[in-house]
Amino acid sequence: MSEEKENIQFELTKELVEQVEHLIETNEDKELRKLLNEFHYADIAEILDELNLEEAVYVIKLLDSETTSDILMELDEDNREKVLKNLSAKEIAEEVEELDTDDAADIISELSEERQEAVISQIEDEEHKAEITELLAYDEDTAGGLMAKELVKVYETWTVAGCMRRIRGQAKEVTRVHSIYVVDKEEKLIGRLSLKDLIVAKSEQKISDLVKVNVDSVNVYDDAEDVAKVMAKYDLEAIPVVDDNQTLLGRITIDDIVDVLKEEADKDYQLAAGITQDVEADDSILELTRARIPWLFLGLIGGVGAFLIMGGFEESFTGDAFKIFFFTPLIAAMAGNVGVQSSAIIVQGLANDDVKGSVNSRLIKEMLLATLNGIILAVFLFFFVWIYESKIDLALAISVSLVAVIIVAGLIGTFVPLFLDKRGIDPAIATGPFITTSNDILGILLYFWISKMILGI
Amino acid sequence: MSEEKENIQFELTKELVEQVEHLIETNEDKELRKLLNEFHYADIAEILDELNLEEAVYVIKLLDSETTSDILMELDEDNREKVLKNLSAKEIAEEVEELDTDDAADIISELSEERQEAVISQIEDEEHKAEITELLAYDEDTAGGLMAKELVKVYETWTVAGCMRRIRGQAKEVTRVHSIYVVDKEEKLIGRLSLKDLIVAKSEQKISDLVKVNVDSVNVYDDAEDVAKVMAKYDLEAIPVVDDNQTLLGRITIDDIVDVLKEEADKDYQLAAGITQDVEADDSILELTRARIPWLFLGLIGGVGAFLIMGGFEESFTGDAFKIFFFTPLIAAMAGNVGVQSSAIIVQGLANDDVKGSVNSRLIKEMLLATLNGIILAVFLFFFVWIYESKIDLALAISVSLVAVIIVAGLIGTFVPLFLDKRGIDPAIATGPFITTSNDILGILLYFWISKMILGI
Repeated sequence: MSEEKENIQFELTKELVEQVEHLIETNEDKELRKLLNEFHYADIAEILDELNLEEAVYVIKLLDSETTSDILMELDEDNREKVLKNLSAKEIAEEVEELDTDDAADIISELSEERQEAVISQIEDEEHKAEITELLAYDEDTAGGLMAKELVKVYETWTVAGCMRRIRGQAKEVTRVHSIYVVDKEEKLIGRLSLKDLIVAKSEQKISDLVKVNVDSVNVYDDAEDVAKVMAKYDLEAIPVVDDNQTLLGRITIDDIVDVLKEEADKDYQLAAGITQDVEADDSILELTRARIPWLFLGLIGGVGAFLIMGGFEESFTGDAFKIFFFTPLIAAMAGNVGVQSSAIIVQGLANDDVKGSVNSRLIKEMLLATLNGIILAVFLFFFVWIYESKIDLALAISVSLVAVIIVAGLIGTFVPLFLDKRGIDPAIATGPFITTSNDILGILLYFWISKMILGI
Repeated sequence: MSEEKENIQFELTKELVEQVEHLIETNEDKELRKLLNEFHYADIAEILDELNLEEAVYVIKLLDSETTSDILMELDEDNREKVLKNLSAKEIAEEVEELDTDDAADIISELSEERQEAVISQIEDEEHKAEITELLAYDEDTAGGLMAKELVKVYETWTVAGCMRRIRGQAKEVTRVHSIYVVDKEEKLIGRLSLKDLIVAKSEQKISDLVKVNVDSVNVYDDAEDVAKVMAKYDLEAIPVVDDNQTLLGRITIDDIVDVLKEEADKDYQLAAGITQDVEADDSILELTRARIPWLFLGLIGGVGAFLIMGGFEESFTGDAFKIFFFTPLIAAMAGNVGVQSSAIIVQGLANDDVKGSVNSRLIKEMLLATLNGIILAVFLFFFVWIYESKIDLALAISVSLVAVIIVAGLIGTFVPLFLDKRGIDPAIATGPFITTSNDILGILLYFWISKMILGI
């Protein structure tokens, strides 16, 4: 590992980007190399994300592959894809040689199948090649898709001194040594050791006397999100990955888990806001439209539904009762808001494994909560309508409806995500426009029925 | 550190909780201790979260403080507060003695000021006491509030062999050795070393020859969120904390950062769903009401506004034009949805430092995007209204309004979070009900104006 730079103050300025662009344009390679080598690879990636494709490829080809491989990993995914298209299979293979197996497999998996083979065939290190090929076989959302093959492994029969000697060799390839995994002669995971344990131990001690047995491990086919939860819950910085026979296959480190957690949080947030697919503010208008329009369409259908319902009640609410129509947006908004609030808290609770107890007790709690909220709000609304319109029956119809609508919206917002979760469907899709739209429609219907009853129409 | 258990399969069952409750009730201490010692402390915390207060306190007093201190850290915050109230200052001090300084300071900071002093005075280890007192002085949202005093520190003048000897002593107190920090004789941070570097090096080498200089560090007063961003960006597992003179004060580890990132994501998600304050699904109805009602009240005011606007246009839309009112929920829903979509993507982009370029270019992009979305949706709506109502001017009025409303909603959703961010206000408050309500009102107004114009009223 090379020197790390002091970078907390790094700020991507327009001047810096222009300076880089100028040096590229004038082919001042030496100057450019000197300038960029002052920055951390993650910062260089930020600069590259601001350049056009040709310039970015220029920089990638200019710097040595030890740095550029790390830069590639940090690039915005869309930009990386474009840059890779402009590199030969040989060039990509050179980048891949510098990367740990998990990152290498991630990069290669983004290529077309044809190019994948071309790149793999160009990797010179046979062991690296075999390991990457193995990793490519796992689904990216599983433990296998997250793990790296790089780890430090010792046999239980070794002594501390022998161990230290062997570790010196293995550790050079492993960027960060979190744990030393102890296996038996059949490569089955027995336990682990920390480097600290080794340093503190006496050199003639046997590994089998020091090893911590029964360590946490995950199966190679476990879901990535579950792995993230386990690592976060038990504060693990690395976890070994085994197959069904307990054979040690690789390890997953906490930095990959940070990414999984972030992606998961981002996805849930976007779903709650009515955005499908993973998009970023800097994606193209077409990509953003594709992500946004399905939910808007749902909203449109909901709106048309509301129109049809209102038309159906046109004959009922005439004369003074006509004012009922003017509170429809209020009822719809409240139904939507309550639905989103209650579904969001359930979705978040499910994600954090916080939701305990039965569905029934949840629903009863939400009903009490919604009733309390509803009554507080309805009292205000009642006095407003009574004073403003001087019609107590109208005020009563609207405020009673409001309480009913809030209760029903809260129950739906609670029930739907719980139901989806039980069925194995991601409950996050039940937040946002989905819950808003269904609550809008149902809320308006309920409102009209209750109002008809109270007004005696 | 004691043995770690195989726990990925841990599942909190009703039977297990009942078994624990039974053992408590019948005072079968030995059996209970045996049963619980099979579990990881994070799992025991989950069990305790299901027990009543008396039972939880019983278990805490039963198990040894090495385990219970870790359990306390993992308990739900509300439950921890209650349990701590039932422990004496002496008992809390015993728990705190077992914890790392950062966790110890976190626990103590949750107590009343009076109890804080009582607990601190009972801590026997004078160094631990002094370090905890130091940490308590920092704001919890700063690097100082996150850091621990436990770290492994060596002087640049030492040799590898001398270093290893001294580390053996220091490392016993440090749960995880991520890095060895190298300081000069004035305790100023010079750089770092990994244990791996030490093991691979020759024993007579000088530390000053091995040290990686210019390492990332954060200032003790840096914002916790910024620290999290830096650690995530540069894939750091630990970062040293220094004061203005570069004196090494402590270190922050990645597991604390995972918590910061999670809390931040949860908070943004709740704000987007219209929930203020940090609440969980298991909080009391009163707490949940307090968190939810402000936004609902905002929605109520918005609904009343919509009612007033509709009343104002009552005279305008009579006869056939009366149908205009029936599309108000559709317009309001679309305005709300588009506003939430565009604000969410900006808020997320700001959180991830993804939003680059000027406010103007953002607004232009959103306008193009909204226009595209709006036209697609308006075409459908136009044909629906035309066919269903056989009135082309009504169809035109509604669909043109829809496009206009979507554009304005998109622009507001984009502008407001950017504006708040520039002013140093958390843009996340601009998502959810805030944007929905303002867009509802504005959308309806716009819709009525445009319809009046097109219908020539």
